[in-house]
Amino acid sequence: MKIIRDTINVATRRTYEILDITTNINNILEKSKIEDGLLVCYVPHTTAAITINEGDETVFEDLLELLKKWVPRKGDYKHNAKYAGIPQEENAHAHIISSIIQPSITVPITNGRLELGTWQRVLFIELDGPRNRRVIVKIIGIK
Amino acid sequence: MKIIRDTINVATRRTYEILDITTNINNILEKSKIEDGLLVCYVPHTTAAITINEGDETVFEDLLELLKKWVPRKGDYKHNAKYAGIPQEENAHAHIISSIIQPSITVPITNGRLELGTWQRVLFIELDGPRNRRVIVKIIGIK
Amino acid sequence: MKIIRDTINVATRRTYEILDITTNINNILEKSKIEDGLLVCYVPHTTAAITINEGDETVFEDLLELLKKWVPRKGDYKHNAKYAGIPQEENAHAHIISSIIQPSITVPITNGRLELGTWQRVLFIELDGPRNRRVIVKIIGIK
Repeated sequence: MKIIRDTINVATRRTYEILDITTNINNILEKSKIEDGLLVCYVPHTTAAITINEGDETVFEDLLELLKKWVPRKGDYKHNAKYAGIPQEENAHAHIISSIIQPSITVPITNGRLELGTWQRVLFIELDGPRNRRVIVKIIGIK
Repeated sequence: MKIIRDTINVATRRTYEILDITTNINNILEKSKIEDGLLVCYVPHTTAAITINEGDETVFEDLLELLKKWVPRKGDYKHNAKYAGIPQEENAHAHIISSIIQPSITVPITNGRLELGTWQRVLFIELDGPRNRRVIVKIIGIK
Repeated sequence: MKIIRDTINVATRRTYEILDITTNINNILEKSKIEDGLLVCYVPHTTAAITINEGDETVFEDLLELLKKWVPRKGDYKHNAKYAGIPQEENAHAHIISSIIQPSITVPITNGRLELGTWQRVLFIELDGPRNRRVIVKIIGIK
């Protein structure tokens, strides 16, 4: 069994942003030479998340619009009241959304490739940017 | 270490539908003879999802009702505007819900069985059917 | 390869409650001596969930408040109608939230430690307490 660990650096430019990181992940997988196993994408942040869906800008906008409507950035949050006056900590909305979508996703690897469907891409979701972010890629499998 | 991969074919009959696929998964696990490890259920689609909950028709209906209310099928979505006139692509609601619930779930295997609780079943969630769908089952562990 | 399985007992005291179980998980990981691999936290219940976020009481309260607003405990649920008169089964809200947040999360292990970010903690979410709950911790990796 072989275990590989690598990281992807993501520099977000907006408060809310979805970035397709599939190419970065595929490069790490290819370099690992692992043919069969599991790949975990893990975001070590509490105001960002990871998911899988179509790499289409209109899907990104619709998802973010829904999330903004459901968990508004300006709301009556206890976390924001606690940190009132520190704008970069007024981010309860981002903690809530990150907790629901989650910071971890696992994808099977078969014949050296991620088992993504035709339209699937791995998406990093920024909820409190712009920030410098990291995604940890952990691969466990056999060559 | 042993790694097994199999697929389950799911033919959905309605726009929204929840199907209990636990028996199919248990059959794959039993055939694999893996006694200890992890099982990943992975949906390679962007308008469906996977989760775990009670295999009770009223739970399925309550969950779908909530999702329909929260992310209505007919809405002011950019994805649907882009594909206006192509009914099978007017499915932004399904992309949004799939992104939030996620297409992947990992369950521990111990003594040759999934560690599902008494009431837990693995559920395939169709959000844009009817369609022919696949679920990939990947098992990593030891005999 | 080594595979370890352990459980954490959680006694919740309120209907809704978020408990930081990171220390319990770290103790299991340390005892396992596994240096490199994956750790899965799995909740074998259909009215609780698991996630990762900041271990801050105001974040817990804001998340629970949003969930209560979005999926109210008293609602027009078919599951509750089916079990009318059995108060402990009038918990459709908890089944819905558990299905969306999910009962499983996977975290990479590197150098004998969980790859949690600075502010990340593993959180058990009770949605239908008080109850005695269990969390299954499964670790797969190498020493």
